[in-house]
Amino acid sequence: MAARAEPRWRHAHLLDVDLLDRDELETVIERAEAHERDPAASRGALRDRRLATLFYEPSTRTRLSFELAARALGAVVVDLPVAASSVTKGESLIDTVRTLGALGIEFLVIRHPRSGAPWLAARHFPGHVINAGDGRHAHPTQALADLLTLRHRLPRPIQGARVTIVGDVLHSRVARSDIWALTTMGASVTLCGPAVWLSGFDAWADAMPGDRRLAITTDLAAALRGADAVMALRVQRERLAGVTSLSESAYVAGYGLTAERMRVARPGALVMHPGPMNEGVEIMPDVAAGPASVITDQVANGSLVRSAVLALLAETDTRG
Amino acid sequence: MAARAEPRWRHAHLLDVDLLDRDELETVIERAEAHERDPAASRGALRDRRLATLFYEPSTRTRLSFELAARALGAVVVDLPVAASSVTKGESLIDTVRTLGALGIEFLVIRHPRSGAPWLAARHFPGHVINAGDGRHAHPTQALADLLTLRHRLPRPIQGARVTIVGDVLHSRVARSDIWALTTMGASVTLCGPAVWLSGFDAWADAMPGDRRLAITTDLAAALRGADAVMALRVQRERLAGVTSLSESAYVAGYGLTAERMRVARPGALVMHPGPMNEGVEIMPDVAAGPASVITDQVANGSLVRSAVLALLAETDTRG
Amino acid sequence: MAARAEPRWRHAHLLDVDLLDRDELETVIERAEAHERDPAASRGALRDRRLATLFYEPSTRTRLSFELAARALGAVVVDLPVAASSVTKGESLIDTVRTLGALGIEFLVIRHPRSGAPWLAARHFPGHVINAGDGRHAHPTQALADLLTLRHRLPRPIQGARVTIVGDVLHSRVARSDIWALTTMGASVTLCGPAVWLSGFDAWADAMPGDRRLAITTDLAAALRGADAVMALRVQRERLAGVTSLSESAYVAGYGLTAERMRVARPGALVMHPGPMNEGVEIMPDVAAGPASVITDQVANGSLVRSAVLALLAETDTRG
Repeated sequence: MAARAEPRWRHAHLLDVDLLDRDELETVIERAEAHERDPAASRGALRDRRLATLFYEPSTRTRLSFELAARALGAVVVDLPVAASSVTKGESLIDTVRTLGALGIEFLVIRHPRSGAPWLAARHFPGHVINAGDGRHAHPTQALADLLTLRHRLPRPIQGARVTIVGDVLHSRVARSDIWALTTMGASVTLCGPAVWLSGFDAWADAMPGDRRLAITTDLAAALRGADAVMALRVQRERLAGVTSLSESAYVAGYGLTAERMRVARPGALVMHPGPMNEGVEIMPDVAAGPASVITDQVANGSLVRSAVLALLAETDTRG
Repeated sequence: MAARAEPRWRHAHLLDVDLLDRDELETVIERAEAHERDPAASRGALRDRRLATLFYEPSTRTRLSFELAARALGAVVVDLPVAASSVTKGESLIDTVRTLGALGIEFLVIRHPRSGAPWLAARHFPGHVINAGDGRHAHPTQALADLLTLRHRLPRPIQGARVTIVGDVLHSRVARSDIWALTTMGASVTLCGPAVWLSGFDAWADAMPGDRRLAITTDLAAALRGADAVMALRVQRERLAGVTSLSESAYVAGYGLTAERMRVARPGALVMHPGPMNEGVEIMPDVAAGPASVITDQVANGSLVRSAVLALLAETDTRG
Repeated sequence: MAARAEPRWRHAHLLDVDLLDRDELETVIERAEAHERDPAASRGALRDRRLATLFYEPSTRTRLSFELAARALGAVVVDLPVAASSVTKGESLIDTVRTLGALGIEFLVIRHPRSGAPWLAARHFPGHVINAGDGRHAHPTQALADLLTLRHRLPRPIQGARVTIVGDVLHSRVARSDIWALTTMGASVTLCGPAVWLSGFDAWADAMPGDRRLAITTDLAAALRGADAVMALRVQRERLAGVTSLSESAYVAGYGLTAERMRVARPGALVMHPGPMNEGVEIMPDVAAGPASVITDQVANGSLVRSAVLALLAETDTRG
């Protein structure tokens, strides 16, 4: 029963998945599933409460996903379009979040190019802060969406499953959050990409507690062999341009996910991508749209886990 | 009775007026009139359903008109400000509309600088697509608003009325959609402007079925003579700059709508403009604000026809 | 009783505080206090009525404050992001506000870099216009928020209190509106800053009616001595750059509000700032966050006075 797990949630903010233990991850997932079964049950969870989205980086899907999730729970949602706001007058993040608090905003969903910015916001904002992505550091609700997707679509439990993440791991907050969430749930994670984009991760793998399984390789065939799920990360062209040893065509030739290459994975291995995709670069269109693709599920599940997180945070206000 | 005409509506999308026959045009108009008489009756037509506006070109009036129409029907409306969105990361239109579908968006109102983009969107979006203007091609709800305005304000039926469209017809999606809608309803349409902006339209006029009446002329006095309604199109300064033979002052001298020139039209001939206006260029301020001007009606009627279209599309979901 | 004062409100627009007499200022303040005590009582004051925010300058707090206030009263709020709108096509303000009226917008909240623009809007808009800041000229709701803040937090009545305003008075609409509102209420106002930023204000002070008290000085210690409240104005770096005699460090050295300097004010003298702050320039962080700071109150009170103004304007529609 979901109800039993829920007292496990004791956080005022959602800043990172590495702060959540396995019971807490399951609490979110179960709440998301309950919400999917019966959306009407949580319709008033944030009734008339004010939520602001404050995105210092452009985003379509994440911002919108939070907005729709919050409105479906009854919240009043406002967006602060950063480019057009007082931020251009040099207003500091601290001043901004204090102002939002004074305006009665109780939930703040923040994305920021600097790692750690949501922690700074949480110290000065009087309500709940949800990290919607900070620098290269964390993107916790994406990782929660990926857990929910795997739970629904894998033919086996996440514990013990093999998940391969391919691409620019170095710059990816999605990868970092997925590594934490997946290894916490007992999955075995393999990171794969050009060496320059794996830099530093072997040290991380070595330092991981013994019960977490994280492997690193530049060999795509090895990384895909036997995988239960394969996630391609977005390749940002401007980052390719910064690597003299790597061109877009070299990346496609070496690491683009093709149907041919997927053949060494388990039959029916899931295909994932956090979006937005560069089809034809990190993933071929036929793979992205193939029967094993769960990319659209990831988007839909993003909404569900965001609803779950918001409702859980709201409940902490009234718990003794 | 409007109720009798309505089974005529069988479209999942509104992509162009040239896909609507006369009965269907009248169905929209009658629904809009019903909505004007009793807005409360359709208040729940889109209750809690999600509509996104996705405008790849700047717009005030059209986007806002759709948003207000949809919210008055009970919809949850979100806007994707394209400049600030993932589109700047190179996300494709197909990926964007699939994502919107996965987020539970059921109605997509799209404006795009490339002609045909709404058709592409409709192939990949799981809900209803409404074209809010694509390239030079079509702007169906503007044409519907113009039909409603003429129906309310002309002292005679649209069938047989003479409507003159003046200006940069070449680049105008409004003109193209109005030509279709007006000739379908039996009006006689005359296009007038500098030759360079009429290029290709004589071929269109020649190819029209015999029961449609479309005339082309560079002679403004001839075009205005006996007109029941005159629509000035917006002159975009950057397009004037591209025509060596044409300066702004030459345009004003040759084609600007003045009270003096309007005298050869029928007494009380309606003055129309799709907005936004360059007053003093394509239309003089006294004409724009004069008693025969229905420019403000066009805006108000835009809201009514958009409500009607959204309600009709919503009904197709539940019809057998 | 607030109820007794309210028939004093007879304005269709809120364009400037200098149009409000003392009774009218008190009417707004009392309505704001009533709204604070019982927000539910005014929940339907703007039920389903349409309000647009039209900001030709970037803003976070003011726009959002209006939006939240209006939504809490039941209004349907839309924002016209000017940068992304038809304004970039050269649409005139007059055309824009007429269009908004035709779309059923009844309340228009406007910010514009040109002084006087809200008056122009009011002449052509069919509903209520609220000035949210025009050029250097006026920012009436900020002044109303400041009055409410002083009323709540001063240990004495506003009448007879000494309020000092420090900084770039020359370019500040906040200062101009505060001068009017405070002297109308009987406070004694002192303006202080570098001479170049006080230019012209001595003429204003001389021309003031005898019962209004406005003093001007470049001597900060003199200005602070005995003050009941001290307001620091935002210093805009680009304006410092335009003054050859003044660097940022010279400004901080001469006029930055430090705890040390505040010692000559009355014990517990209130610290105010209209935001957004440049902490470390016009105000030191320990002063801004100190126990006498009411900066956060100003933000919260901004919402309350905006609710009050909107409700009062709405009531004029039904009064005989």
